[in-house]
Amino acid sequence: MRIRKKKWAMPYMQDHPEYAVLEPSQYVGKWADRFANPKAPIHLEIGSGKGQFIIGMAQKHPDVNYIGIDMEDSVLAMAVKKAVEAGVKNVQLLLTNGGDVADLFKQGEIQKLYLNFSDPWPKKRHAKRRLTSSQFLTSYQRILPAGASLEFKTDNRGLFEYSLVSLNNFGLHFESVNLDLHHGNEEDLAANVETEYEEKFKEKGPIYKIRARFPD
Amino acid sequence: MRIRKKKWAMPYMQDHPEYAVLEPSQYVGKWADRFANPKAPIHLEIGSGKGQFIIGMAQKHPDVNYIGIDMEDSVLAMAVKKAVEAGVKNVQLLLTNGGDVADLFKQGEIQKLYLNFSDPWPKKRHAKRRLTSSQFLTSYQRILPAGASLEFKTDNRGLFEYSLVSLNNFGLHFESVNLDLHHGNEEDLAANVETEYEEKFKEKGPIYKIRARFPD
Ligand SMILES: C[S@@+](CC[C@H](N)C(=O)[O-])C[C@H]1O[C@@H](n2cnc3c(N)ncnc32)[C@H](O)[C@@H]1O
Ligand SMILES: C[S@@+](CC[C@H](N)C(=O)[O-])C[C@H]1O[C@@H](n2cnc3c(N)ncnc32)[C@H](O)[C@@H]1O
Repeated sequence: MRIRKKKWAMPYMQDHPEYAVLEPSQYVGKWADRFANPKAPIHLEIGSGKGQFIIGMAQKHPDVNYIGIDMEDSVLAMAVKKAVEAGVKNVQLLLTNGGDVADLFKQGEIQKLYLNFSDPWPKKRHAKRRLTSSQFLTSYQRILPAGASLEFKTDNRGLFEYSLVSLNNFGLHFESVNLDLHHGNEEDLAANVETEYEEKFKEKGPIYKIRARFPD
Repeated sequence: MRIRKKKWAMPYMQDHPEYAVLEPSQYVGKWADRFANPKAPIHLEIGSGKGQFIIGMAQKHPDVNYIGIDMEDSVLAMAVKKAVEAGVKNVQLLLTNGGDVADLFKQGEIQKLYLNFSDPWPKKRHAKRRLTSSQFLTSYQRILPAGASLEFKTDNRGLFEYSLVSLNNFGLHFESVNLDLHHGNEEDLAANVETEYEEKFKEKGPIYKIRARFPD
């Protein structure tokens, strides 16, 4: 995603330390304390973009704490703005690279992981940069309990084909695969919270989704 | 598939014992001898229908022996007719149920397995009848060497979603997934031999394909 730099982004986030975490490494092992309810489980989205999904989930599930990660300040700032406007008490937004999660969370500190419309990196030589590559899965596994759940949505056929193979080869157990989320399975749709990209692309073709568990 | 019974089917197959095997249990452990070249590996298709795929593969790969299985005599007879007309030396066609393969082949007698456009059995209570259910996979595993390859194509979204989960849960290693075989990956297409159903349905929507290996 090419992002237009927003000058207001960093100052705005600095003004909202209750949501924006610009130096996340200081909270390793202490993330629970950043939430109004420190006892709730923490679910993480990597590449949370402008935050529509993570804030929608937070509103739908007040008993869960949510962390959204994005590495682009201009995008993350939009999510912070949404959180401010919504006044949610169970969202934190971190400016960092998803590849660094193993340095930011202790094992078991995160209960569940979401990836939505991750950058596809279509060239084979960039496969390692895909958020579902074995390199990234290895990092995720280090912060999740055994058997933890991963949910992944995308409209990108190539990325989904790659991810099915990558997740399988890594040893994840598939729970469900949906090859057209917005046409068919009503159960999946009822639970669905749309992302910005999903809203934009769901009319153009299928949205793919997989729910899987890390090995026990 | 509802099949119109063909009166000529059984007599025709009885007249062509060089291709049609109506009592396959007598050849357990001796399948190689039924082929002109007994040293070639044997690849099996279950639910081979009217035989377009298996005979097309036989023509394309004269160094491989092919067995097609179907439980409907009216359909299998059409495949036998095609084999007679093509005069291929590396095809055998068996009238039997795919669920019985473990009684018909010794472990390792079959090197590779194909499933094409298997009946979808959309009702949940019929899931066990799907040729990619764990029950069937268990039977296949008993006739294949460790690490053997399985290729599966279908136009049926529900069956493919189910099969991705079932194959994964059984421990198969995915090698590739293609969510639209006829649009995109040229390598996959160049190697592709179309089935009757594929020819009929490829214009109506995506043809899904997976290549996977049984556990080592
Ligand atoms: C295509 S956008 C999708 C945004 C949002 N999830 C949605 O579905 O609308 C991908 C987002 O992931 C972020 N991103 C890409 N790679 C990342 C990484 N390694 N770590 C953190 N964020 C990343 C990008 O900055 C971008 O905001
Ligand atoms: C939908 S047709 C597809 C035929 C062919 N593979 C194609 O792609 O054109 C499914 C075929 O599988 C056969 N079949 C279904 N269940 C079977 C089973 N348990 N054992 C053997 N054949 C079966 C049916 O008789 C039918 O010919």
